[in-house]
Amino acid sequence: MSESSRPASGEDSLIARYFKPLAKDPGAFNLDDDAAALRAGAEDIVVTTDAIVEGVHFLPDDPPETLARKALRVNLSDLAAKGAMPAGFVLTLALRVADDDWLTPFAQGLGEDAAKLGCPLLGGDTVSTPGPLMISVTAFGRLPQGRMVHRRGARPGDRVVVTGTIGDAALGLDVLNGGPAAGALASDAVAREMLVARYRVPQPRNALAKAVRDHASSAMDVSDGLAGDLAKLCLASSVTAVIDVQSIPVSSAASALLARKVIGIEALVAGGDDYEILCTVPGDRIDVFTQAARAANVAVTAIGGIIAGTSPPSFLDAQGRELALKRLSYSHF
Amino acid sequence: MSESSRPASGEDSLIARYFKPLAKDPGAFNLDDDAAALRAGAEDIVVTTDAIVEGVHFLPDDPPETLARKALRVNLSDLAAKGAMPAGFVLTLALRVADDDWLTPFAQGLGEDAAKLGCPLLGGDTVSTPGPLMISVTAFGRLPQGRMVHRRGARPGDRVVVTGTIGDAALGLDVLNGGPAAGALASDAVAREMLVARYRVPQPRNALAKAVRDHASSAMDVSDGLAGDLAKLCLASSVTAVIDVQSIPVSSAASALLARKVIGIEALVAGGDDYEILCTVPGDRIDVFTQAARAANVAVTAIGGIIAGTSPPSFLDAQGRELALKRLSYSHF
Repeated sequence: MSESSRPASGEDSLIARYFKPLAKDPGAFNLDDDAAALRAGAEDIVVTTDAIVEGVHFLPDDPPETLARKALRVNLSDLAAKGAMPAGFVLTLALRVADDDWLTPFAQGLGEDAAKLGCPLLGGDTVSTPGPLMISVTAFGRLPQGRMVHRRGARPGDRVVVTGTIGDAALGLDVLNGGPAAGALASDAVAREMLVARYRVPQPRNALAKAVRDHASSAMDVSDGLAGDLAKLCLASSVTAVIDVQSIPVSSAASALLARKVIGIEALVAGGDDYEILCTVPGDRIDVFTQAARAANVAVTAIGGIIAGTSPPSFLDAQGRELALKRLSYSHF
Repeated sequence: MSESSRPASGEDSLIARYFKPLAKDPGAFNLDDDAAALRAGAEDIVVTTDAIVEGVHFLPDDPPETLARKALRVNLSDLAAKGAMPAGFVLTLALRVADDDWLTPFAQGLGEDAAKLGCPLLGGDTVSTPGPLMISVTAFGRLPQGRMVHRRGARPGDRVVVTGTIGDAALGLDVLNGGPAAGALASDAVAREMLVARYRVPQPRNALAKAVRDHASSAMDVSDGLAGDLAKLCLASSVTAVIDVQSIPVSSAASALLARKVIGIEALVAGGDDYEILCTVPGDRIDVFTQAARAANVAVTAIGGIIAGTSPPSFLDAQGRELALKRLSYSHF
């Protein structure tokens, strides 16, 4: 369309220039049509949607290339936690202006991630807004019929497991906002950059999807804070959990900040944007799950256990004292 | 969740109060999970996404109940034009505040339309924004494998057909904005209300989906203006069209405004928000298509024909003179 001799509208030429090159899946119909098509066959299509808003989920000066990656990755993180393999996504982009300097790196980051993570662009909508930039992605995954892993399903005796490390993204945001972590790490550019990268570019654990599907009794991704998200999982499963705070995996940067008492563990377990998988695994499956995770090259750590009960999960320190959490997680309203 | 003894976050309680009652499809998992599931079997899943932004696609004082309907219906209109039956949708809502007086009628309008139009809520995301309200819907439809109707496919000799009437929504917006139509209809409340209703609550032609799939060579919905959308369809099909302006179906209100020269036909064919189906039907199928439309209780009108060529479509008046269209349709950028 961009090569046509006819005048295309601004919106059409924007789509042609930036997004058609990313839409090579046959179901995208080269973005020339009003809809995309997904073929499912015997599989279920898993659907998830997450939006990010300037000033709420990201900072106005976050690089467009990382915004694109984050918008896609937060959705891929949901697919991974549900045990699904990525199948494609649609993008809704609300922009104040069609700015080439912004759109070029945005489309490049998006295209690279879509290719790397095996999740092709299928379609979308580009609209103008007088307000903050908003990037909304609806992503699709595939899994065998009826095999989606739910929040519901955790049972007493199951182990509570998380991937990766917890709290780095919250520290990265703190660095960007000039908070306590920024001051404490003023002379450590490597640590600052690592934490900021964890905030800006989550690492969805799609390599673990099959292991989660095969072995986890329940799962979700940690997006609003470990404490709050675990509470949601327990609520959906009608159980509770006891977490050994000492065993929560943290990065060496976070560990150093904890040791220097710049931050408390509360900031890490109530911080958001981890995009790690939180899941529960029956005791007799934990070894095979751990082996599968190792084969998938994803770090997993058991941090506690599920018990019967309806009270909120307990976070116990080395002395067995319960952590007092002022807030469990981020909420929009 | 709203009935839980545990404190739910504001976002969770908002979802529990307003949206769980709408999510009765088994694939929605009662909105308790991070994803929804669609079962497709031998059918293709058609995916379409359209967002509406306050101040761009709707007016700040448009009623929340009609905004909900419009956000869903503009997507159902795409499904209808592609020949698909509605299967469900996910909703992304960006709100400044969680305002009960706004959310109650919004959820009610959405629920009523989802039930009436057979398109259940499957999931979504609710985020806060400091900017304009934005409602983004991604809708899913089903159709037999490979049977999606494309923009591409129109051939010389095909008839050009539209459903309903063209231009009423643009006049409705003009009424709301106090434009020429508002003045001319100052004493005709019935006509004003009809036109405003056409702007606020489109009538997706889902009853025609099967007839479109069975008989149309190409189709799309008219969302940005008949002239511009026909140009897009012709471009995708590598053909052009000759339209008999006299045969374009208009409502009696629009017809009266044309007769009084309050507006010209250009305002109607370049106006947006019609959400009627524009399709092309081979000459030997037009009778059976018309019969199927009658059986589906959807008005269809042949307005011209497809011819070979690459110039933009011609709109000819009663004297055979070509209409000069200053702009073909609405573009965001």
